[in-house]
Amino acid sequence: MKLLETINSPAELRKLPRTQLTPLAHELRHFLLDSVSKTGGHLSSNLGTVELTIALHYVFNTPHDRIVWDVGHQTYSHKILTGRRDQMHTLRQFGGVSGFPRRVESEYDTFGTAHSSTSISAALGMAQAAKIKGEHRHAIAVIGDGSMTAGMAFEALNNAGVQEDINLLVVLNDNDMSISPPVGALNRYLARLMSGQFYAAAKNVGKSVLPGPVLELAKRFEEHAKGMVVPATMFEEFGFNYIGPIDGHDLESLIPTLENIKKLKGPQFLHVVTKKGQGYKLAEAEPILYHGTGKFNPTEGIVPAKAGKITYTEVFGNWLCDMAAADKRLVGITPAMREGSGMVRFEQQYPERYFDVGIAEQHSVTFGAGLATEGLKPVVAIYSTFLQRAYDQLIHDVALQNLDVTFALDRAGLVGADGATHAGNYDISYLRCIPNMVVMAASDENECRQMLTTAYRYEGPAAVRYPRGAGIGAEILKELTSIEIGKGEIKREGKDVAILAFGSMVAPSVAAGAELGATVANMRFVKPLDVELVKCLAADHDYFVTVEEGCVMGGAGAAVAEALAAEGIVKPILMLGLPDKFIDHGDPAALLAGVGLDAKGIAASIRQRFMAGEPRLVVNNT
Amino acid sequence: MKLLETINSPAELRKLPRTQLTPLAHELRHFLLDSVSKTGGHLSSNLGTVELTIALHYVFNTPHDRIVWDVGHQTYSHKILTGRRDQMHTLRQFGGVSGFPRRVESEYDTFGTAHSSTSISAALGMAQAAKIKGEHRHAIAVIGDGSMTAGMAFEALNNAGVQEDINLLVVLNDNDMSISPPVGALNRYLARLMSGQFYAAAKNVGKSVLPGPVLELAKRFEEHAKGMVVPATMFEEFGFNYIGPIDGHDLESLIPTLENIKKLKGPQFLHVVTKKGQGYKLAEAEPILYHGTGKFNPTEGIVPAKAGKITYTEVFGNWLCDMAAADKRLVGITPAMREGSGMVRFEQQYPERYFDVGIAEQHSVTFGAGLATEGLKPVVAIYSTFLQRAYDQLIHDVALQNLDVTFALDRAGLVGADGATHAGNYDISYLRCIPNMVVMAASDENECRQMLTTAYRYEGPAAVRYPRGAGIGAEILKELTSIEIGKGEIKREGKDVAILAFGSMVAPSVAAGAELGATVANMRFVKPLDVELVKCLAADHDYFVTVEEGCVMGGAGAAVAEALAAEGIVKPILMLGLPDKFIDHGDPAALLAGVGLDAKGIAASIRQRFMAGEPRLVVNNT
Repeated sequence: MKLLETINSPAELRKLPRTQLTPLAHELRHFLLDSVSKTGGHLSSNLGTVELTIALHYVFNTPHDRIVWDVGHQTYSHKILTGRRDQMHTLRQFGGVSGFPRRVESEYDTFGTAHSSTSISAALGMAQAAKIKGEHRHAIAVIGDGSMTAGMAFEALNNAGVQEDINLLVVLNDNDMSISPPVGALNRYLARLMSGQFYAAAKNVGKSVLPGPVLELAKRFEEHAKGMVVPATMFEEFGFNYIGPIDGHDLESLIPTLENIKKLKGPQFLHVVTKKGQGYKLAEAEPILYHGTGKFNPTEGIVPAKAGKITYTEVFGNWLCDMAAADKRLVGITPAMREGSGMVRFEQQYPERYFDVGIAEQHSVTFGAGLATEGLKPVVAIYSTFLQRAYDQLIHDVALQNLDVTFALDRAGLVGADGATHAGNYDISYLRCIPNMVVMAASDENECRQMLTTAYRYEGPAAVRYPRGAGIGAEILKELTSIEIGKGEIKREGKDVAILAFGSMVAPSVAAGAELGATVANMRFVKPLDVELVKCLAADHDYFVTVEEGCVMGGAGAAVAEALAAEGIVKPILMLGLPDKFIDHGDPAALLAGVGLDAKGIAASIRQRFMAGEPRLVVNNT
Repeated sequence: MKLLETINSPAELRKLPRTQLTPLAHELRHFLLDSVSKTGGHLSSNLGTVELTIALHYVFNTPHDRIVWDVGHQTYSHKILTGRRDQMHTLRQFGGVSGFPRRVESEYDTFGTAHSSTSISAALGMAQAAKIKGEHRHAIAVIGDGSMTAGMAFEALNNAGVQEDINLLVVLNDNDMSISPPVGALNRYLARLMSGQFYAAAKNVGKSVLPGPVLELAKRFEEHAKGMVVPATMFEEFGFNYIGPIDGHDLESLIPTLENIKKLKGPQFLHVVTKKGQGYKLAEAEPILYHGTGKFNPTEGIVPAKAGKITYTEVFGNWLCDMAAADKRLVGITPAMREGSGMVRFEQQYPERYFDVGIAEQHSVTFGAGLATEGLKPVVAIYSTFLQRAYDQLIHDVALQNLDVTFALDRAGLVGADGATHAGNYDISYLRCIPNMVVMAASDENECRQMLTTAYRYEGPAAVRYPRGAGIGAEILKELTSIEIGKGEIKREGKDVAILAFGSMVAPSVAAGAELGATVANMRFVKPLDVELVKCLAADHDYFVTVEEGCVMGGAGAAVAEALAAEGIVKPILMLGLPDKFIDHGDPAALLAGVGLDAKGIAASIRQRFMAGEPRLVVNNT
């Protein structure tokens, strides 16, 4: 690691002779493997971008020139080369380096990313700003082929291609297509480009097909065709100057190409081919397995974890297969999260009813709506944070038409290592304000399964939210049973204080309730709220406490307050939930405890508000 | 109208000999002009789709075959031919025919539309459903070139192009590009296709360029090229069979083409060229003026309305120009709503700082975020309902990074004739749950201007919501003044009841307050809420009433309830706002009165709850 240790900023990198860059890449790759195997994190994508990262910082004058990394989980090399090498052991831990670029972390992190396909829009903004301000700087978006399938990337290309005199470079980081089933027409197109057939053919076809004397004529034809007929690539049609594909692991190709591009004006598009996991045979062979890892021994590789508690993702995946077996109208839709959403087995068993639509949340929801109009029963599996991408489609295409689409909202609440960008904190608020929606929050694994069945059988739009990871270990009944819509349940009887808990907060609330002698209800439904239960609880309790793993603002607690107001009931209420701030990455349990959402914190908050000697209450005196 | 009167369903249309279709089109166009000039509505787009509508219903077996109309404001001919001719005089009026397709209105309206670019996703869902169910039917999406610029359409194309054996037809209704400034690379590309140069050249280039004997060789070359090198059109690259462009006003071209397409398998793409306003000279000349009209005399055309009260849109447009003059860092962004958002003058005066990014809400927001990172001050002008399309970008790219982007939210609250699809009912709920956001609601024109200045000067994300149409007629001060962040104001002093009103509900609340002797506060800020004011009002009033033109669920009233709960204040509260249902089109004032949000309704609700003899209250007894 002798070379790498000398690089504490890209300025130092740029002082290296070019001959040292390949050894540096070698060291960097070793560092990455060593570091990620100790901390966990994204591996395959980072091994794939070592040379590209070196080349970009070597050729461009960062941070004066701006690099925006799409998604951003491939930025470990970037972090290491921009002064954060010594912090990489804190990766994705509380207070440590983020797994994504963050503006607050470094001036080299020009734009925070994590959700896909934002980079071209952001870099275009930067390029336009430079033009308006008369500053000479380059703005570079580095985007993967997967991210390119999202509509947002297309919107940005469409807009960028007509903006002249801007120093914008889009680098398409095209991973080896063979590692994952190609999804969508664009990927098929890129695979053709990447295979070299297209480009080689376009350049050499005259020579190979036509005999000598006709070559000149063919060239004339080709010239003519180039201007008028032949759109060389889709990206050129969009107004970009297309260069590539080039080998993204070959610094001798990358650096001269980037140096040439640096001199050009207007929107540039560089197509770079890389291999996920490059340089680490195990990751090359199984890039999906090594996409995001825990700790592992690099020599032996990832060993299958012992079967631990079942995760909510698995609960969903199992339910999906069981329900598909029971009802042939079921179709499963994922916006490019087959593994993350637990749909691998479903795809294997029901390939004709499985739709991976690409990173296309908007389309996934309206495609589901279209299927529903014909009497099929689509289940859209989507993370809470990614449903934000399809909010309008949920409102305008599904809810407004009251169509029968089931939403399985994984990663609701805090997500831990991925941090604020991926937090599923807002779905309760943004869903419950939409008419016709049914919104449930699962308190344990079995209830999650029941709620999925309930949502599925309900002939309208319904969402079930469940947290990341494992639940409390509840026994899961095999039968596909529903629960009654809009009905909660009492988990424990107590007095004075009624704790109205939602989803993942039921278990800690029960513990807190036991400590305090309080009643605890598992409300189950955010919408429709169990107003009868609220009224019953109001009748024989003095204090209300609501607890949810979601933002307090507009959340389930607010729903309870609204119900009380609508019923004309006046009752002291304490609303516990996530505070109105973005919460950084860290251990999920510690993060929850940090905001008072463990049993201890819940009990303490209740005690402080309602049980500390004189209650801190201004009771209305009428 | 002899022919048209015989057509009460597409089945009757299909019985006509083909020779009668052109006379029918003529009658239909007359009917449209006559009808829209009496009711108001969309004219240009409907005049442009007369022949296309006839041809689609003539060739395809509707409603068994499904037509999905993108945006849907061009469906008047469709409505007339599918049994709703006699209801067209009720267009866009309360209880009358909707200006958009609606599933509840007709079995021929297979999918409700209004927001753009949903049609391919929905039709693909229908086509897949047919495949899964083994039904033989066609699914047809009719989409304009503008709608095609949205990322969602691209996502759907990307997904559709790889789905084999589906009966999906995408009809691109390409309006004459010269009528509106071309926006984006795709439109430029379509203009090339449409001009005929591309297609003619592709077909004939061999013949025109190469001399006789070489023609055969060139053909070989062309054959070779076709398979390997030449992507004929972008749509073919995406896996569609591309046909066109053809003249969308020539039934002799449309019908045989559609009949041929009907026999083909797999994703089909028909490029049809039409002219907005076709057949009505005044609309052809000024299609934007005749895009959406009030009532007018078809003979003399639209006459400029006398200057009435200034609209909020104009308040914004004027403010934008004034602020741009005062601060050269200002940039204005619109997702294809230059006219609707009042940015015509801004574009004229500051073309280099004006960005129409196309129908690309997602990109518009993140593009703004990118500009903001470089110290510019972007103002994104967007309707409340369309910001739903950029919700994730607002959270993930703007708010999370606390970037300085100003959102001017037009059409907040009920919108009248456009109905539920365009209702800006949810923004308070979906915005206030996001950390770092500042959210204001303007109560009059001058305050709107002040709030825009306040949002602009605030160095973080801030939104100002204002209603469609004119305000109360407040005098607008020329000066660019701010108001204090998070501070409301008392509008009238009263007793017992405190009415906390937001935005457009301040004026009717003041009237109601005067009637009841209640105190009325103009809260101004949904977020940060003026908690000090809430506490002051709580100290000397017995009852709280919140009033907002937005959904009650999670809205500003809920914010007040949360603040009371956080402060430990127990107070009877009545939350008035929009009910939890989708509200159909109709006269805005009548709609508001219908949900009790006029002065009379507000007073009645308060009287009923708090002043009707014995208060209907269950006061907490501790």
